[in-house]
Amino acid sequence: MKVIELFSEIREELQVVENELRSVVRTQNQLLTETSTHLLNAGGKRLRPALSLYGATFYNFNLEKVLPLAVALELIHMATLVHDDVVDASMTRRGIPTVKAKWGNGISTHIGTYLFAKSLILIAGYQETPLISKVLSDTSVKMCEGEIQQISTTFDLQQSVREYFYRIKRKTALLIAASIQLGAVACGAPAAIHLPLRRYGYNVGMAFQVTDDILDLVADQSQLGKPVGNDLRQGIITLPVIYALANSTDRNRLAEIINKTNKNDDEVREAIIIISNSGAIDYSFKISRKFITKAKEALKTLPDIPTRTTLSRAADFINLRKY
Amino acid sequence: MKVIELFSEIREELQVVENELRSVVRTQNQLLTETSTHLLNAGGKRLRPALSLYGATFYNFNLEKVLPLAVALELIHMATLVHDDVVDASMTRRGIPTVKAKWGNGISTHIGTYLFAKSLILIAGYQETPLISKVLSDTSVKMCEGEIQQISTTFDLQQSVREYFYRIKRKTALLIAASIQLGAVACGAPAAIHLPLRRYGYNVGMAFQVTDDILDLVADQSQLGKPVGNDLRQGIITLPVIYALANSTDRNRLAEIINKTNKNDDEVREAIIIISNSGAIDYSFKISRKFITKAKEALKTLPDIPTRTTLSRAADFINLRKY
Repeated sequence: MKVIELFSEIREELQVVENELRSVVRTQNQLLTETSTHLLNAGGKRLRPALSLYGATFYNFNLEKVLPLAVALELIHMATLVHDDVVDASMTRRGIPTVKAKWGNGISTHIGTYLFAKSLILIAGYQETPLISKVLSDTSVKMCEGEIQQISTTFDLQQSVREYFYRIKRKTALLIAASIQLGAVACGAPAAIHLPLRRYGYNVGMAFQVTDDILDLVADQSQLGKPVGNDLRQGIITLPVIYALANSTDRNRLAEIINKTNKNDDEVREAIIIISNSGAIDYSFKISRKFITKAKEALKTLPDIPTRTTLSRAADFINLRKY
Repeated sequence: MKVIELFSEIREELQVVENELRSVVRTQNQLLTETSTHLLNAGGKRLRPALSLYGATFYNFNLEKVLPLAVALELIHMATLVHDDVVDASMTRRGIPTVKAKWGNGISTHIGTYLFAKSLILIAGYQETPLISKVLSDTSVKMCEGEIQQISTTFDLQQSVREYFYRIKRKTALLIAASIQLGAVACGAPAAIHLPLRRYGYNVGMAFQVTDDILDLVADQSQLGKPVGNDLRQGIITLPVIYALANSTDRNRLAEIINKTNKNDDEVREAIIIISNSGAIDYSFKISRKFITKAKEALKTLPDIPTRTTLSRAADFINLRKY
């Protein structure tokens, strides 16, 4: 099963979001149009727009009201991807060259900020729902904090699970939480609706990032769209690595490999074997499942509508995905 | 005379802005605090906060109302400086090392976005004045367009004065226009007040950037705080260069030097002499003075209060500054 099948009930609405996305980034500047189109064509699951639409189904669903938000969320997400590439050494994302690889750091920085600024124009339209700009500005600040913490803890083998959670909350979970919460808010939902949705989104987001970090180690490169062990190569210490560094009998050898700034493929493979043998992958899947359980619990207080079942299935899906 | 003397009547208010700036960027993350403090200590004229305070004097001045805006404007400006450094080859700004020089491109990109996102939290507080977020989001998009146009026209010797104006409007003038306009808007001023202020700011901003581009060629390096001919070295074609390329008898030699990606100091000096001898500096000062005249004309419809005289003198000051 693919995400796209899971989201089949909002396929038409997602197509409207897609068209709007393309129309929003269209501009007279050739370079801007080229880079933005490159990014849009690179695909992506449009997870955040989809979640905002699902959030909206819980209270007077109105596509017109949620559309600018849905587009803004994807623009913010795309902006962070482009900015991440400035730091990230990998030259492909989703299997195609990154903006940084094609156009360099300067363009990446400004294109990212351009997409982000474009989202602000859309958000500025929600004058009567100030919670939207409040949550999204707060989320944006925290996302940057997460990125900066990631850079400053690179190659730091002493970091704790707590620091890891601090980071993935900011890097991933908060925007996903905001997406589904604000979809409901855009349609006028009260706190009793949008807060449980936010809780669902937060926990799904945490599970999503933990799974991502597992897949970075054990997925097929062809399905992942980027080289396996990418985080490891860059010294980004994820949950399985923290576990293995604490529990593996080969922890010294693992630390030695991670500390190398230029690891060859054999060393990366060796590190992955050490991590897998330590039970770190099983442990991380267990943590991910805990977040999924919490996400599904958050749904219980919400009205029992068909999309509630979809969201519950979507939560389960996170642990099943292979890419 | 220095800018700071010109702004003596709002010295206390600017100190409040300064304290608030420092308090806003304070955070638990050590790297974030370090980089932000580095930026704040690097100084700067705080021109945009000052202009927002001046704008506010034209209608029910209230420091509390204009303060978040003043801080937000400086944060946006700082964000663009940090992002520009990713593209810019120069390793110092205002005489001290840039964030990029000290911490690299990745940190620069995320710190810039962090400062920008911080400004959004402040702007989100102006729920009752939606024009503020509307103008600032629009301005931010256009600022990115300007930066991207600059990158894509680097070493393009065919560009016109019109393209140059398109770029400096976006890079500089729009944020200065927004600063003084929104200062008044924050205090509740009607269009008859804030639109002439915007027109003043726009023209002052254009004059300011033209002068900046002149000074990049003819100022003292020690006063400029960065190497003379910086734009030239990077292939950024400014107004004096466009003029000289069209009018100098040595235009072929000038084009030859500009086209080199690695120019030595002698070549840069030679290019500057060709530009000066062509009359390009005088021409550019004349253009700058035209904008200043328009700026002062915009003031005429405004109430004749003491700060109106200050703004008129500030406009004149632009052509007198030496750094």
